[in-house]
Amino acid sequence: MNLIGVIMGSDSDYKVMEDALKILRQFEVGFEVKISSAHRTLERTLDWVKAFENQGGKLIIAGAGLAAHLPGVIAGSTTLPVIGVPMNSGPLNGVDALYAIVQMPPGIPVATVGIGAARNAALLAVQILATENSVLRTKIKDYRAKMAADIAAKDEALQKKLSEG
Amino acid sequence: MNLIGVIMGSDSDYKVMEDALKILRQFEVGFEVKISSAHRTLERTLDWVKAFENQGGKLIIAGAGLAAHLPGVIAGSTTLPVIGVPMNSGPLNGVDALYAIVQMPPGIPVATVGIGAARNAALLAVQILATENSVLRTKIKDYRAKMAADIAAKDEALQKKLSEG
Amino acid sequence: MNLIGVIMGSDSDYKVMEDALKILRQFEVGFEVKISSAHRTLERTLDWVKAFENQGGKLIIAGAGLAAHLPGVIAGSTTLPVIGVPMNSGPLNGVDALYAIVQMPPGIPVATVGIGAARNAALLAVQILATENSVLRTKIKDYRAKMAADIAAKDEALQKKLSEG
Amino acid sequence: MNLIGVIMGSDSDYKVMEDALKILRQFEVGFEVKISSAHRTLERTLDWVKAFENQGGKLIIAGAGLAAHLPGVIAGSTTLPVIGVPMNSGPLNGVDALYAIVQMPPGIPVATVGIGAARNAALLAVQILATENSVLRTKIKDYRAKMAADIAAKDEALQKKLSEG
Amino acid sequence: MNLIGVIMGSDSDYKVMEDALKILRQFEVGFEVKISSAHRTLERTLDWVKAFENQGGKLIIAGAGLAAHLPGVIAGSTTLPVIGVPMNSGPLNGVDALYAIVQMPPGIPVATVGIGAARNAALLAVQILATENSVLRTKIKDYRAKMAADIAAKDEALQKKLSEG
Amino acid sequence: MNLIGVIMGSDSDYKVMEDALKILRQFEVGFEVKISSAHRTLERTLDWVKAFENQGGKLIIAGAGLAAHLPGVIAGSTTLPVIGVPMNSGPLNGVDALYAIVQMPPGIPVATVGIGAARNAALLAVQILATENSVLRTKIKDYRAKMAADIAAKDEALQKKLSEG
Amino acid sequence: MNLIGVIMGSDSDYKVMEDALKILRQFEVGFEVKISSAHRTLERTLDWVKAFENQGGKLIIAGAGLAAHLPGVIAGSTTLPVIGVPMNSGPLNGVDALYAIVQMPPGIPVATVGIGAARNAALLAVQILATENSVLRTKIKDYRAKMAADIAAKDEALQKKLSEG
Amino acid sequence: MNLIGVIMGSDSDYKVMEDALKILRQFEVGFEVKISSAHRTLERTLDWVKAFENQGGKLIIAGAGLAAHLPGVIAGSTTLPVIGVPMNSGPLNGVDALYAIVQMPPGIPVATVGIGAARNAALLAVQILATENSVLRTKIKDYRAKMAADIAAKDEALQKKLSEG
Repeated sequence: MNLIGVIMGSDSDYKVMEDALKILRQFEVGFEVKISSAHRTLERTLDWVKAFENQGGKLIIAGAGLAAHLPGVIAGSTTLPVIGVPMNSGPLNGVDALYAIVQMPPGIPVATVGIGAARNAALLAVQILATENSVLRTKIKDYRAKMAADIAAKDEALQKKLSEG
Repeated sequence: MNLIGVIMGSDSDYKVMEDALKILRQFEVGFEVKISSAHRTLERTLDWVKAFENQGGKLIIAGAGLAAHLPGVIAGSTTLPVIGVPMNSGPLNGVDALYAIVQMPPGIPVATVGIGAARNAALLAVQILATENSVLRTKIKDYRAKMAADIAAKDEALQKKLSEG
Repeated sequence: MNLIGVIMGSDSDYKVMEDALKILRQFEVGFEVKISSAHRTLERTLDWVKAFENQGGKLIIAGAGLAAHLPGVIAGSTTLPVIGVPMNSGPLNGVDALYAIVQMPPGIPVATVGIGAARNAALLAVQILATENSVLRTKIKDYRAKMAADIAAKDEALQKKLSEG
Repeated sequence: MNLIGVIMGSDSDYKVMEDALKILRQFEVGFEVKISSAHRTLERTLDWVKAFENQGGKLIIAGAGLAAHLPGVIAGSTTLPVIGVPMNSGPLNGVDALYAIVQMPPGIPVATVGIGAARNAALLAVQILATENSVLRTKIKDYRAKMAADIAAKDEALQKKLSEG
Repeated sequence: MNLIGVIMGSDSDYKVMEDALKILRQFEVGFEVKISSAHRTLERTLDWVKAFENQGGKLIIAGAGLAAHLPGVIAGSTTLPVIGVPMNSGPLNGVDALYAIVQMPPGIPVATVGIGAARNAALLAVQILATENSVLRTKIKDYRAKMAADIAAKDEALQKKLSEG
Repeated sequence: MNLIGVIMGSDSDYKVMEDALKILRQFEVGFEVKISSAHRTLERTLDWVKAFENQGGKLIIAGAGLAAHLPGVIAGSTTLPVIGVPMNSGPLNGVDALYAIVQMPPGIPVATVGIGAARNAALLAVQILATENSVLRTKIKDYRAKMAADIAAKDEALQKKLSEG
Repeated sequence: MNLIGVIMGSDSDYKVMEDALKILRQFEVGFEVKISSAHRTLERTLDWVKAFENQGGKLIIAGAGLAAHLPGVIAGSTTLPVIGVPMNSGPLNGVDALYAIVQMPPGIPVATVGIGAARNAALLAVQILATENSVLRTKIKDYRAKMAADIAAKDEALQKKLSEG
Repeated sequence: MNLIGVIMGSDSDYKVMEDALKILRQFEVGFEVKISSAHRTLERTLDWVKAFENQGGKLIIAGAGLAAHLPGVIAGSTTLPVIGVPMNSGPLNGVDALYAIVQMPPGIPVATVGIGAARNAALLAVQILATENSVLRTKIKDYRAKMAADIAAKDEALQKKLSEG
């Protein structure tokens, strides 16, 4: 079953959104991916959301740049939680996308992560699933432990390098 | 016939969007007004767009604040020109709405006016209609002439005040 | 059982964060509230997070202003999902808090909502719980339906007012 | 007959503004192009506007960067609709040009598109002409359909690539 | 003879621009004032510039808000130095006007002062005239000395207040 | 006699400030150049200002980046007009330098030009000198005419290229 | 002995800077206060810095708004540590002052605190003195403990209020 | 004894933070370096702070990018002065890190330097130590003198180059 739906407005977003897919694969969470636009293929987008919800989907990750409407429009058409990823495309460095995603009006929230932070979007999705899934909870704790160990290892390497002059 | 459709996402936008209605009345251009949201009543919004287009509507003016998706979502669902008015609501002074309206992705433009500039949105709509309507063209020229005369009168009043010390 | 923990760095944030509590009460979701700071009472904050997690808490909503570290610091100390609410306090209108919450480094996400959007934070929390709770799912759908009906009613009132001139 | 006038303040803008010309050619809309500045050749600019209007021009697209005055100055000297394209030139990434174009004072609107969005400017011009021209209306609908089909094709390609691992 | 021309796009700017007039009166520098717009009364503006130049004017101070084109347009139509005052009008706190005035393209400079800084604009004008006028030079030095004395007096008053506890 | 003093805080600014020197040479205006800092060599800077003023200097052009204090500090220590050039150095694209130069407190103006606009700074200086120098006035008019002719030539070349397809 | 010098560019800054004085009195740290400007009374400012340093001063707190040069100019004229307080004065909400203080060029640092954060500036000063003064170290720890206790008390009051419904 | 602790959240910050180490070595000030995160290894970070304080450390320099919490979290867990260095990492050019470091809430200051200004952070640290250490005070004065001499040398080289044409 595909618990997570990952959607983006343009194939040019795929390179960044792929970071999310890697995390989902690493955590062995079923997902599906969709390229569909809030403006150019709105109906198709809404159909996909409905179908994803009907097949048992739990969470949607939506990435978009510029006047990034995709996450918000999806959030308005489903009660599943929507995680928005502002893309760093165009001259404004993603500030336009950040504002267009995070500043949702009262009633329809989008869970926004940092600009280009597809990896964090997937980790957030996993953490949400983990609240009802002890296997995932363990995996997240392991992932965190590994991150901590990596930092410790890098610190150790630096101490060694500095002490050796 | 209602040539212009004026839509806003919330009744709290009405006070500003009323500036547009005043201009349309002044130019005797038929219009209709709608409160409908891109997030909370998307289907209803799309239905209205379709109906407005079918009854012979020519142009849509859409006002929205915060992560302002209404103008862009409408622009994606019709080939009528859409004029977007970013509302100055919320802590970011309308910069969020401006970015969320003007920075549309390639293929789906929104004709954006200044933050809170509902009056200019209506004047733009009239100017567009005027390209095929000589009566409106004359009215626009008169409107411009009156604005120029107002400035001249204010200047005269100032000169008088200053010369009188 | 308190499924949602609502924490804020200062009692001056309470007036805004209360919007979240109202939603949680309306949806009959158990919650607890805490005032504790990431800087002035870090240990106390971390203790509360641990205790909240141990008693079966599912989700944390954290509100903070200025250099808003509270959501991110909590996110780093638990694997529960953390929803961050940037407060509009201080001269920068909440942009400082938005950046300090949403731009989390890789590995530790915070689900960020709009500036001052405590109500949306709570709705997001409810939507997350609703993915495993059909009663909440129904309530969310009802809430959405009511929002849509409110807009329709406001639109109707406006149409009436306009037609009556 | 040249229905659309495309003007830019500097030949360095041509590379971006050419995107507009491509669209106009694709839609077989007659146009003329002009390089003329609001500051360095103001009179020449005003003469061109007058001549363009007299020969039956319907709409002007004006691109400018930095303190981008060209669209607004033209808008003040004609009642034809003016579409402004903020150029991404200089260190401020086009934010200066965006503000200098979109924030027009009451009375003189400029229909502003995104930073560097010359293609969208031309599409907006075509959409405006299409309100009185059923051939163009059909072409726009075809163009939209093709954009939608492109996204669907890209989505299909991605699905195939992912399913093949 | 009116050495300085002070022009503003709207009578709503007068309250701020009056700070400039006060300085010019204090320094006994002849000036004239004009309300005229770059958009609504362009021709009238250009006529005034020409007339001001012909009667022996030396310097123009131009104040404007929003997409503030007045200083730049005047700068393009005269070789007299133009001092631009960005007005703090509208929701963007004058940043739009600042960018629209200071970011002039190569070849046509505008001497820009701070947002709302009409007083500084006039002082700059006086300093420029003073380079060829020893009476003004003395007055400027006196003005500076008085400012310094004011600060010293305020400091003294504070010292007294603090020592008296 | 050196009428114009060109000063910069660091030799890394020279490459940009050289644009000013080219203009001054082209207009045959005597100038001197100085590298001296407001922070690292304040006394040396103040000594130079004093000496420059004493030898008959008329105007100072000061370029600085980051927290750009050089123009303002010089403006405070002389009554000669100071033209400030914000440098585009560092991660903020010169916005820091722009604010640090243009937003001078009441009493001490700096005539600010665009970010990196050393050429415009020199043209402004020449325009100021030209108010008392008819030879320079003629040269400025010629320079303007040449800029206009350049644009006309580029326009002609474009028309030719487009008509040849 | 006055260990801390508190200087501000204008008496209008006093109301905010007074927060610093309250802290210094509370910690019984000797201080002196000065109103003197980097632009209007530069020499007087430099004289005060020199005198303050000679009488055994350890640290300078400097508050300034707009193009806030005072902290940086002082930092360049002494090797004592300088703490800069950006004032929230003028239309840019203190962002101009923040950039003008924090973005110092290489070689001359200013220890910058938040916009309007005079209280934090004084606490930073006390913490610096405390590194060599065990009495102050104890006082700082007490101050921190009191802040923590205040938060705990506010939290308790809230828990009580909520439990009482 | 290590008087200065230099900590960074990621080894990717090392390249910039190395500028601080060079200064500390040049001034022969004992230091230690740590890679540890506020989010991924919070406990380890707090342990290091405690240990650093216990071994006699005087000052901490903390560098971090994005939602840069490291300096503030450390500042909350020690009464030693903390100098924060905002890193220019990610799409926002370090503005996010600057706000997340400098805008600390009342009670817990961080002495913030410019974006990427690790060198200035170290110089600030040395200046602070120098208030109680005359050897360092002399070294700082020598360092300043050398910077001034460098500028004078560069100025001389430029004068020579210009006079030789």
